[in-house]
Amino acid sequence: MSPKITTELLKQLRQVMKNPKYVQEPVQAYIVPSGDAHQSEYIAPCDCRRAFISGFDGSAGTAIVTEQHAAMWTDGRYFLQAAHQMDNNWTLMKMGLKDTPTQEDWLVSVLPEGSKVGVDPFIIPADQWKRMSKVLRSAGHDLVPVKENLIDTIWADCPQRPCKPLITLDLSYTGVSWRDKIVALRSKMAERKVMWFVVTALDEVAWLFNLRGSDVEYNPVFFAYAVIGMNTIRLFIDGDRMMDPPVREHLQLDSTLEPEFRIQVMPYGSILSELQAVGAGLSPKEKVWLSDKASYALTEAIPKAYRYLTPYTPICIAKAVKNAAETEGMRRAHIKDAVALCELFNWLEKEVPKGTVTEIIAADKAEEFRSQQKDFVELSFATISSTGPNGAIIHYKPVPETNRTLSVNEIYLLDSGAQYKDGTTDVTRTMHFGTPSAYEKECFTYVLKGHIAVSAAIFPNGTKGHLLDSFARSALWDCGLDYLHGTGHGVGSFLNVHEGPCGISYKTFADEPLEAGMIVSDEPGYYEDGSFGIRIENVVLVIPAETKYNFKNRGSLTFEPLTLVPIQTKMIDVNLLSEKECNWVNEYHQKCREVVGAELERQGRHEALRWLLRETEPLARVQ
Amino acid sequence: MSPKITTELLKQLRQVMKNPKYVQEPVQAYIVPSGDAHQSEYIAPCDCRRAFISGFDGSAGTAIVTEQHAAMWTDGRYFLQAAHQMDNNWTLMKMGLKDTPTQEDWLVSVLPEGSKVGVDPFIIPADQWKRMSKVLRSAGHDLVPVKENLIDTIWADCPQRPCKPLITLDLSYTGVSWRDKIVALRSKMAERKVMWFVVTALDEVAWLFNLRGSDVEYNPVFFAYAVIGMNTIRLFIDGDRMMDPPVREHLQLDSTLEPEFRIQVMPYGSILSELQAVGAGLSPKEKVWLSDKASYALTEAIPKAYRYLTPYTPICIAKAVKNAAETEGMRRAHIKDAVALCELFNWLEKEVPKGTVTEIIAADKAEEFRSQQKDFVELSFATISSTGPNGAIIHYKPVPETNRTLSVNEIYLLDSGAQYKDGTTDVTRTMHFGTPSAYEKECFTYVLKGHIAVSAAIFPNGTKGHLLDSFARSALWDCGLDYLHGTGHGVGSFLNVHEGPCGISYKTFADEPLEAGMIVSDEPGYYEDGSFGIRIENVVLVIPAETKYNFKNRGSLTFEPLTLVPIQTKMIDVNLLSEKECNWVNEYHQKCREVVGAELERQGRHEALRWLLRETEPLARVQ
Repeated sequence: MSPKITTELLKQLRQVMKNPKYVQEPVQAYIVPSGDAHQSEYIAPCDCRRAFISGFDGSAGTAIVTEQHAAMWTDGRYFLQAAHQMDNNWTLMKMGLKDTPTQEDWLVSVLPEGSKVGVDPFIIPADQWKRMSKVLRSAGHDLVPVKENLIDTIWADCPQRPCKPLITLDLSYTGVSWRDKIVALRSKMAERKVMWFVVTALDEVAWLFNLRGSDVEYNPVFFAYAVIGMNTIRLFIDGDRMMDPPVREHLQLDSTLEPEFRIQVMPYGSILSELQAVGAGLSPKEKVWLSDKASYALTEAIPKAYRYLTPYTPICIAKAVKNAAETEGMRRAHIKDAVALCELFNWLEKEVPKGTVTEIIAADKAEEFRSQQKDFVELSFATISSTGPNGAIIHYKPVPETNRTLSVNEIYLLDSGAQYKDGTTDVTRTMHFGTPSAYEKECFTYVLKGHIAVSAAIFPNGTKGHLLDSFARSALWDCGLDYLHGTGHGVGSFLNVHEGPCGISYKTFADEPLEAGMIVSDEPGYYEDGSFGIRIENVVLVIPAETKYNFKNRGSLTFEPLTLVPIQTKMIDVNLLSEKECNWVNEYHQKCREVVGAELERQGRHEALRWLLRETEPLARVQ
Repeated sequence: MSPKITTELLKQLRQVMKNPKYVQEPVQAYIVPSGDAHQSEYIAPCDCRRAFISGFDGSAGTAIVTEQHAAMWTDGRYFLQAAHQMDNNWTLMKMGLKDTPTQEDWLVSVLPEGSKVGVDPFIIPADQWKRMSKVLRSAGHDLVPVKENLIDTIWADCPQRPCKPLITLDLSYTGVSWRDKIVALRSKMAERKVMWFVVTALDEVAWLFNLRGSDVEYNPVFFAYAVIGMNTIRLFIDGDRMMDPPVREHLQLDSTLEPEFRIQVMPYGSILSELQAVGAGLSPKEKVWLSDKASYALTEAIPKAYRYLTPYTPICIAKAVKNAAETEGMRRAHIKDAVALCELFNWLEKEVPKGTVTEIIAADKAEEFRSQQKDFVELSFATISSTGPNGAIIHYKPVPETNRTLSVNEIYLLDSGAQYKDGTTDVTRTMHFGTPSAYEKECFTYVLKGHIAVSAAIFPNGTKGHLLDSFARSALWDCGLDYLHGTGHGVGSFLNVHEGPCGISYKTFADEPLEAGMIVSDEPGYYEDGSFGIRIENVVLVIPAETKYNFKNRGSLTFEPLTLVPIQTKMIDVNLLSEKECNWVNEYHQKCREVVGAELERQGRHEALRWLLRETEPLARVQ
């Protein structure tokens, strides 16, 4: 990796920062955040403005360019990568280290008095604007919205915003029609006494209308906004795709519907002016509901007194609780995914000893097996295929420069998943194709104990996921080991592989309580820098539990694994497992045999079936 | 309990709300919060204004009186009590229930347009002012500070603010001189580039100057503020007590000290004007450090741009980490406390069967035994002495109306503690003086398993206490049982029995990480409404742990119990304990025998010693 040379680009950017064509007054600093106008985790190439200006293309980072300086804030996952990808024009600001200033504090320290700091108001979330603006103002500076994105003005070959065809999902996939979702949303709006709801997150628009797209890699979403009133529905979306007959029929665009279900289709770019018109026409007590993470531009369109902001929207919360059709779809998707992985691991077991399988080849092979399954759409994220020391890099993705050959001497970690039309998968298995050391087995077994502790946990209705995080760590902690990431995230139903509002992490506190029908991952790990990485990840469904006393009728919850892929018994030190844990593994493997075995049989995949049966032999605990 | 008749009082309050002698403009609503000017948990009688105006004297509650309404917000612990103590003039607002409006929302719903809402700016914390003021302003009302407390104007026989003599603590108790504490504080101030630090919490003033008082029951504190500059020390305190020779010597008031250690003693009431003078004299970049819970009045004295607000002050954090002298003091205090409780339980075992011991008698007897111990000062909180159904009332305090006789048929729960000059104690034991039922033993054993899970937990340095909370619940959860309170709180060293910034609770997230030297309680419970309550509480010290891999030198922590009082083995269903848990109990009891046994011996308390030996016989687990 050689760094991107940015001298010329920075010169151009500094020129437009003073160019009255783009800025009312010159700005002395310009902020380039990571995200897009929807605060998406995964973004389209046209939104990779921070990567364009700096060369650093990790998933998180904020660039700030002043007349003299160019600085990049990113977190521990990316210190090395950012240092490699950026040239000497850039200063790396290592977030999380004690001496690293915040962006605001740094700006205050370098700016001449009375400076203007510019930012694209569509890209910066309102809550972040508020925080920065406050600090800057108290130091005599101003944060100002710059309407035209200054990066776009100097980005000659900026890719087009994608505008790919839409997929319509019928009731057999979604369980609830878009009309019924609108009805439910309006009832939530009535409860909170709001008249309008603005849908800004891409997965929320997709979920609400039972549509999917492919504008962003890995996430089956499309660029759109929606504004739902008590009697109106406005969908802001571009392209011919709205002329597609199945889409028109799905949305009933050409039927004479009751007025409150008639969808007005409007250009994507008209959201701001339309919302400003809504804002201008509000009578007292008419509130507009927005996510507090919506962009500053859209939030400002509504006068402050009329805004109703919440961290999680009612769509986000409804989307998280999967109905029977979605749950069944997720089950089917996970069975197909397990078939693909049984094929893969059987193949790896034969091929790895030959010394010809690299991390990239293994990842490609996993995709090949998955793509053979019914309703496969694409991967759900970039496959983490890592062996030996690469396994200790938590967000590793093999590239030619780092690509390592799998061997019988190193642990192999595969974290991968796919989008099927009926569900989204995300599974991690850690395998050894030779003989693991006692230490590797010990660490693996602690991780497994943590995985089981969460998966088998019983807890009262209303418990937040973050309260379960320590269960995953207890066995590791007892020996002085830990892992520096959360234990689980919400998973969408043929939607984003990471979604709110629930999860299992020591880092969050504002997560919504778990309830039956929610789907999260359970993925503790252990990482030994320079040596190996271990992670065991299942996607699990929150289900009601049976308990002796049932929390005085408050109700009990537990998890059911949807992922049904064998956990390599070769890696387990059985003597470190309790009887209960041993039984959990054996019952889990029995279920893999029954459910995935039947599907392998049905698909005529006999060799993979033999592999599955061999890998799911019951553990025998020495008493 | 008959309710307080408040018709006349409310009439008087509504008059002063319009009286230009007290308010610049009439206020349409007046807020009476719970606290004092220092945001203390326990308050002096002169600060019990909410109880005076309403009759409701629970520890938490806010009254709001408008021209038409009088409403009281309190939480689930006090719904019953508040309903009993208040007359029909009052509406009870049950916090935590779905349909209960917040104070702000309620005000907005009942006030005429453009109303003024008054509050004493010394009593309301700045963060709360900010939240309320924002909501009121957006609805067209105004929150206004009313200088003179309106309750005080109508409270004819308002008690005097206490002004009791001070106790000086020498190095053998505190380990660090007040001068060294000032030096350490100034170095923290220099780190954060602040020029002034305002000490507003009473326990922080007491800790900083190594002084104690008795202005507030149970809390050895005194009414005072302090303002620490880089070269000045101002102590705001009233009374003759500053003429006391030991106090003068301790503070070196009559010596010629280096100027930066000279303490200027000023009247308690002059804090606001002095702070305003400080605020007016600040040059740019000179910041003043305050707790974000400091009163609105003091916070406003410093212009906004000069404020440096944090949730926990450097004193709060330093105070929480006990040094060797403090830890040794706490150990001594807990041994003495255990002696008193051995005496008590031995006495109860003999007396309860006679049917003559009530909850109040038992509580008094506990105090009597404690008061026989060296350096006993007072109780550290109102003794919770409860038997049978009273045990299920978590914050129960026996009064003549509820006083129940202990019997051999009911569980007895005693949660009590004391202030000794060398330390503060807080211990809960649950006993049966007859034969407990299988169900009672089952519940007790789950609570014990939770207690042990926390006490024996090993976790990496830097872990926050709230991450351990679920460990205390896991065994209960498995059977569908839970308890609706946190698991632990910080404990002061001859200071408040509840202190920040650490604790073990699912409710908080902003707690500071645990570190060696911190002291918290470990007190899971189980409560069966109408039948019994179970709680097992030890005060525990955070200590370094030995682990196999030591978190890559990040270091490991665990707990050491300071409380050394037998846990009644009669209540334990040994078959529900793991071998590890059984060993924990036996080792704990062995330590009680050795340490407390020796002290009982030394004090010649032979009968109590025999009781201790009997109660600490090792458990035998059936294999």
